[in-house]
Amino acid sequence: MTDAPAADAQPSRRVSRRALLGGAAAGAGVVAGAAAAGAAISSATHPAADNPGDRVVPFRGGRQAGIVTAVQDRLHFASFDVITTSRAELVDLLRRWTLAAERMTRGLETVDGGAVGHGELLPPPDTGEALGLSPAALTLTIGFGPGLFGPSAAAPGQADRFGLAAHRPAALTDLPIFAKDAIEPSRSYGDICVQACADDPQVAVHAIRNLARMGFGVVSVRWSQLGFGRTSSTTRGQATPRNMFGFKDGTRNLTADQTDRLDKHVWVGAEDNPAAAQWLTGGSYLVARRIRMDIEPWDRASLLEQEQIIGRTKGEGAPLGQSKEFDDPDFLITSRGTPVIDKTAHVRLSHPDNLDGVQLLRRGYNFTDGSDGFGHLDAGLFFLAYCRDAHKQFVPMQRALAAHDAMMEYITHTGTALYACPPGLASGEWWGQRLFES
Amino acid sequence: MTDAPAADAQPSRRVSRRALLGGAAAGAGVVAGAAAAGAAISSATHPAADNPGDRVVPFRGGRQAGIVTAVQDRLHFASFDVITTSRAELVDLLRRWTLAAERMTRGLETVDGGAVGHGELLPPPDTGEALGLSPAALTLTIGFGPGLFGPSAAAPGQADRFGLAAHRPAALTDLPIFAKDAIEPSRSYGDICVQACADDPQVAVHAIRNLARMGFGVVSVRWSQLGFGRTSSTTRGQATPRNMFGFKDGTRNLTADQTDRLDKHVWVGAEDNPAAAQWLTGGSYLVARRIRMDIEPWDRASLLEQEQIIGRTKGEGAPLGQSKEFDDPDFLITSRGTPVIDKTAHVRLSHPDNLDGVQLLRRGYNFTDGSDGFGHLDAGLFFLAYCRDAHKQFVPMQRALAAHDAMMEYITHTGTALYACPPGLASGEWWGQRLFES
Repeated sequence: MTDAPAADAQPSRRVSRRALLGGAAAGAGVVAGAAAAGAAISSATHPAADNPGDRVVPFRGGRQAGIVTAVQDRLHFASFDVITTSRAELVDLLRRWTLAAERMTRGLETVDGGAVGHGELLPPPDTGEALGLSPAALTLTIGFGPGLFGPSAAAPGQADRFGLAAHRPAALTDLPIFAKDAIEPSRSYGDICVQACADDPQVAVHAIRNLARMGFGVVSVRWSQLGFGRTSSTTRGQATPRNMFGFKDGTRNLTADQTDRLDKHVWVGAEDNPAAAQWLTGGSYLVARRIRMDIEPWDRASLLEQEQIIGRTKGEGAPLGQSKEFDDPDFLITSRGTPVIDKTAHVRLSHPDNLDGVQLLRRGYNFTDGSDGFGHLDAGLFFLAYCRDAHKQFVPMQRALAAHDAMMEYITHTGTALYACPPGLASGEWWGQRLFES
Repeated sequence: MTDAPAADAQPSRRVSRRALLGGAAAGAGVVAGAAAAGAAISSATHPAADNPGDRVVPFRGGRQAGIVTAVQDRLHFASFDVITTSRAELVDLLRRWTLAAERMTRGLETVDGGAVGHGELLPPPDTGEALGLSPAALTLTIGFGPGLFGPSAAAPGQADRFGLAAHRPAALTDLPIFAKDAIEPSRSYGDICVQACADDPQVAVHAIRNLARMGFGVVSVRWSQLGFGRTSSTTRGQATPRNMFGFKDGTRNLTADQTDRLDKHVWVGAEDNPAAAQWLTGGSYLVARRIRMDIEPWDRASLLEQEQIIGRTKGEGAPLGQSKEFDDPDFLITSRGTPVIDKTAHVRLSHPDNLDGVQLLRRGYNFTDGSDGFGHLDAGLFFLAYCRDAHKQFVPMQRALAAHDAMMEYITHTGTALYACPPGLASGEWWGQRLFES
């Protein structure tokens, strides 16, 4: 599977949620509409829709969508605790989730006519707030946390509730606590995550809300996070966005077309986790870190200090000593005997050359969760990164950053989580099927 | 002023923030870029830009922008406490805010070259995260709360710190606490509000953040609220959006072209508040209410119950008994002796016919502030409404709703605030000038 094409990287032709739902709202034509959507999705793909909001990203394929997919503008991320001890209930939910998720990525309700078409004496199966909105390139990406397989940081005494311990990947153990971490358990961990990315936040929120609702009695939302601005690109030509420190973020990210590098750094190989090879090969690990940025002190730092901390210029985003954003940094050049890029600069410490070649596929978002009660914005970066083994890639990088990065003075990691994300689904397959049928 | 045209209702021609800032990022061409932007803004307006993100909404005019302006997709709302007792410091801030606000609505940094052009030994005056983003139809709308004029609910013992008590509008007194309110002071009140609306959330967040930052030592953010989906339209032809209950919201909202109704219901007349006539005539009152929706119980209500509570169909949004969204509701029709639109239906209780003709200009947003620690989404409606006298319009409506609205079972008002919003600014004028020079 490691050489499977990144089939989910390109959105396919436009399908209007409004057009599809016109029939559903009138209580007729639902099946025909859904069939038409299916036909549209399976036909030849177009590189870009006329209106970005109308894009549909295929839900099934060799990889899960939402990993190398061109990063959408908005995020709603949810981490769930499984609250049932019944394996059958959990499997049933995963089956139902899969059907609903695939429909929602097509711009449809969770079930045919879900918002209004199931009779007035029943609660509508779909909550309805996405009626009339476009598919908005929605992707839904699932991952499984350590607690699903037994003990974890969130529940050290957790039993092997679902008989999955034998299939636990060796690398699916909780991330360590790093120097200066201030981890809040209520913003961390979780048995199952769903990452919803879309170009319309209401579409992403609708998807998470309906999945959470379908999970009543089986799973419970442990924490969730909204992101409003992407901080990375996975596609060449997507402009590099800026984080809340005002700097371009993700300039050196891996891109969807770098298939050799993705195989090396992102996709799990069969040899990586023998116990989990059957269900995880071709998948990836997802690291989630909620990073609160102390933006008020940062805003009082001089431009020189800011640029020295990052190791890049603020305007262009060029490595210090270079002139263009995509120029390679040169860590050897000095000025009056001092390195132009500080020993403690973020760009130096996080550079593959200084981490034995380690790279991650980043997919983070900016966030602002209101104010913190002290007159400060509760803002920062919700760091999401996919990798082949977090303990060999993210952990050494974060150890170096936590110990030496000058930026640590201005940030605090308040949330942490790790999930194993299976590969994409074949036709008819449901989320987690290969794991539960291993 | 009450017959001034709603000059801010139409966005004008496109101006690319990226294009304007290309020069600034390179440290040159800033003045020319700003001048070009100014020229573009003052020239003939186009009804719609090619790319909605590139729209500039004029900052100055007879009315403040952001009231009847076509509702942008995203909101960042901030309420500030004034923490200085120096009138001069406050006036100085309002002057500086005005210049920065006008620039940001044009897609520029808070000051020329603010992100990188002020020398490397100084903190950059602009935080930079909006560099490269389009103006996104940003509007910044200011309002003044009761506390600026003396005692208020937030600070009952507040002195008349700035010598403004004589100019306090009679109608600028705190809203009452309604039945079933669960008001949290940390989400309520405030001396000054700024409503930032834009089609890109990062543009709105950047604006509020930079205003907050400029206010260091003078004002402090008391609370702030992000909204991700508008729940109303102020312009004919803008589709009616849906709230988190899945229903269309704002179908009967006032629109920018209804100038007679706006004069009657929204714009403050000279006769309304004699003490404040000099600075408030042509302005409006802004009511802000954070309404938490108990969406999980709502989602378990039958479609029939949901539609009876609202008084409209869920799919089309038609009043019960009618077939189309914009059909007038008929409160007299019955079925088997029972009103088709319940006595406790939201649409009945909030209809002008049942409130002595009272109407409001609504401008609310959906919100989701993560999870609440009980596995529920902390979601709802951030209700914003402009009116000529909140105590004569919003208060009787909310009294009727709080007492009788069946929807009250599913919602809780957790935040409340009232502000007086002055009219628009003439050339060279600063926010609050007419008040402070009254």
